[in-house]
Amino acid sequence: MIFKLDPQLTADTFMVGDLPLCRMLLMNDARYPWVILVPRRADISEIYQLSMQEQQLLWQESALVAEKLMILTQADKMNLAALGNVVAQLHLHHVARFKTDFAWPKPIWGYGDAQPYNPSEKQQVLGSLSEMFRGFFVSGQGLNV
Amino acid sequence: MIFKLDPQLTADTFMVGDLPLCRMLLMNDARYPWVILVPRRADISEIYQLSMQEQQLLWQESALVAEKLMILTQADKMNLAALGNVVAQLHLHHVARFKTDFAWPKPIWGYGDAQPYNPSEKQQVLGSLSEMFRGFFVSGQGLNV
Repeated sequence: MIFKLDPQLTADTFMVGDLPLCRMLLMNDARYPWVILVPRRADISEIYQLSMQEQQLLWQESALVAEKLMILTQADKMNLAALGNVVAQLHLHHVARFKTDFAWPKPIWGYGDAQPYNPSEKQQVLGSLSEMFRGFFVSGQGLNV
Repeated sequence: MIFKLDPQLTADTFMVGDLPLCRMLLMNDARYPWVILVPRRADISEIYQLSMQEQQLLWQESALVAEKLMILTQADKMNLAALGNVVAQLHLHHVARFKTDFAWPKPIWGYGDAQPYNPSEKQQVLGSLSEMFRGFFVSGQGLNV
């Protein structure tokens, strides 16, 4: 089986780049800095279905994204979640939270409607993410391709 | 600094046992099989603040809990999250979800009020968890102490 991004994730996000295991996506919701990691493996819905080596890679990439996103945004708290009740394909949310944001201190999931980025915001955020993770993307992937 | 469980977590949960890194807690909410892992480290609120070795342990213990909880409950989906907007002490939620449960397919956080276990339910669930993870607890810890 070949990895193919779930159509709902494709519709809701922008591609940032490919880390060694995961595709990095930006959620199209300007309310929160919100990055999703999707392991490029077919038919995986639970983390423990990945091999031990893949799990290690997943968490290394997750920690990288969490820490760099906190540095980039100067947020108050990182929220991490793997839910998958609607989209079964394993995907890991990383949401930088601010004490002043829309849903604080509640979790963001299922709380209000997404607020799509306008074109200039999108370009700016994707540019910042691309710059910050450039050295980590595998070759031939990412925004410049 | 010495590890001390956050008072809110203490109030909301029952102790199950200590894995090598994490304290295992059962959330006192009979609506969902809900296990929380808390690394026994002081002053940690983000996963990436743990050492690499501790992060590896955390995710090994998380995968163990997720898989065994799915086997025990025969649930439809595991929901994993590290939020911490209210309780800053790093804690990792593992919630076994059913397509028939209270909040499905919504995330459970911030959705309705907890429904405390009655004494017999509590004894049954804690007994099942204790039995299932007995071989993984570090000595001198757990329900029997």
